[in-house]
Amino acid sequence: MRLNARILATGQALPQRIVPTAEVAALCGVPADLAMARSGVRERRWLSGDETALTLGAEAARNAVQAAGLSLDNVDALLNASGSHLQPIPDGAALLARELGLRGKSTYSLHATCLSFLVALHHACLLIHTGQARHVLIVSTEAGSLGLNHAQAESTLLIGDGAAAVLLGPARHAAQGLEAYRLETYPEGAEHTRIRAGGSLMSPLRPEVTRADLTFDMQGLQVLKLARRVIPGFLERLRPGLSHGLTGLDHVIPHQASQAGLTLMERFGWPAERIEVTLPHLGNVIAASLPLTLHQAMREKRVAEGKTILMVGTGAGLIAGGGIFHL
Amino acid sequence: MRLNARILATGQALPQRIVPTAEVAALCGVPADLAMARSGVRERRWLSGDETALTLGAEAARNAVQAAGLSLDNVDALLNASGSHLQPIPDGAALLARELGLRGKSTYSLHATCLSFLVALHHACLLIHTGQARHVLIVSTEAGSLGLNHAQAESTLLIGDGAAAVLLGPARHAAQGLEAYRLETYPEGAEHTRIRAGGSLMSPLRPEVTRADLTFDMQGLQVLKLARRVIPGFLERLRPGLSHGLTGLDHVIPHQASQAGLTLMERFGWPAERIEVTLPHLGNVIAASLPLTLHQAMREKRVAEGKTILMVGTGAGLIAGGGIFHL
Repeated sequence: MRLNARILATGQALPQRIVPTAEVAALCGVPADLAMARSGVRERRWLSGDETALTLGAEAARNAVQAAGLSLDNVDALLNASGSHLQPIPDGAALLARELGLRGKSTYSLHATCLSFLVALHHACLLIHTGQARHVLIVSTEAGSLGLNHAQAESTLLIGDGAAAVLLGPARHAAQGLEAYRLETYPEGAEHTRIRAGGSLMSPLRPEVTRADLTFDMQGLQVLKLARRVIPGFLERLRPGLSHGLTGLDHVIPHQASQAGLTLMERFGWPAERIEVTLPHLGNVIAASLPLTLHQAMREKRVAEGKTILMVGTGAGLIAGGGIFHL
Repeated sequence: MRLNARILATGQALPQRIVPTAEVAALCGVPADLAMARSGVRERRWLSGDETALTLGAEAARNAVQAAGLSLDNVDALLNASGSHLQPIPDGAALLARELGLRGKSTYSLHATCLSFLVALHHACLLIHTGQARHVLIVSTEAGSLGLNHAQAESTLLIGDGAAAVLLGPARHAAQGLEAYRLETYPEGAEHTRIRAGGSLMSPLRPEVTRADLTFDMQGLQVLKLARRVIPGFLERLRPGLSHGLTGLDHVIPHQASQAGLTLMERFGWPAERIEVTLPHLGNVIAASLPLTLHQAMREKRVAEGKTILMVGTGAGLIAGGGIFHL
């Protein structure tokens, strides 16, 4: 069933500091050329100075609302859809509301690590389709650089910081909106991508907790092996034929998991020129990668109203997710 | 607009260890009689031995599914709706899926601290009403005792651990479901209830982070003052007349924020015998309080199919939320 809604505008906010791969390679003690070749990331942004995921998230939100020609007063619901948490309590959406000067609005978070934006997009479409809300603002803001283990080059080279926001509103016509949506979790991959400590299962107060427990740990090869096994079936359940080509779709907005993750898409017969890429200059910005990549595609007019896009990716869990949206 | 859905069953799982208030009062260095009088909590459950929020959450989930006469295979979506996090990455819902042996299901988290269950209930009703899912399982599981600051008696006396799960499915008739729902955030209260450190705004890796930063900090009087100011208007927007009585409603399932929070309801002309209470024997179990209190009301037959209930409360943020559900 199609959920009628429209993407009114997108916005982004990037940290000022551009970190070239040679600099990250030196942090990790690996050769720069190898680091570039293996990660596929040329540069990424990392927070510096007074920047936080909160200031960036608010800036992206303001940019999206302004681009839509609306004001923050028009927003009925503010959804925080970030893989990294701002603060354990209160919820990050309340902190974003304070930063934006919003009062009396409906605010909360949706979380599925790298696919948090996709889950929030589905929720926003449910709200708008059923008339429970008119304008829904999704903010994905990430500060992954603060939780990296420099002893693990693979993940340290991959992660960038940044924020994106997407404002949704009512559809103009019956064809507009989320045509198909699917999320599938394969928890045999739960240990492949993790931050073990920081929640109640391993409290940060425990004396035996190490820096490694509190930072990002990724077994990229394991993720890739599991993804290769489950994604073709997942794609067929999302839309029959999708594991063999892009029939009926104009453009793909993938999560920028890794170079290998993007390369995997060639196996499905998806032409490279129809796959939007931000990995080389932004890295993997966790949940913000999807809306940042959508923002780039819209800004550079590769997608526009009337086009049908596929948003797709995997997240820690392992979670596979996808949405087909008629803009 | 009514969202058609039905609560099929509820389940709970409580830690084995019952902690009397005298014991907590001694931990905090306050007199037991004063502790009892001020908190309104006689005893609460705290995790011990091998128990975790994950094992409890899974047990509550199994109980709810079994009580509905269904199997876990029937579950289309598993929603983690907990105020405390299991682990930063992957998402807690993926960990619950692993514990339950679920594979290929849609799993993610919704978060609004103490009102996470209410937000997830609304989302579940959206999924079921629109036909996007048939059976949705919500799990709220809390281990707040692991994040308490014993130097702060007010919050330490209040918090209990526990888990509850609610299984929803399609409505039997057009009157069944969520009749009204509303969430409003007043971020001027963002500092009144908090755990400052542990997210990206104050990384647990920072050397200056203290135990106090990583534990729960509540300014109860400030919360109460703000709640008293905003709740009457909030109730009127949820349903006109609600700040003056319970016309058309059979029973109230409130979040068990505190004794003072429950007392506040008398101001609205809500008869005490129609307000379900679990605070004295369970304490404030964060997001699990609402479904645990619903579970008690259903188990003890104070509510049943055909009745209309009000679920209502406040959470850190400050967030006010409520839902009117025709069972």
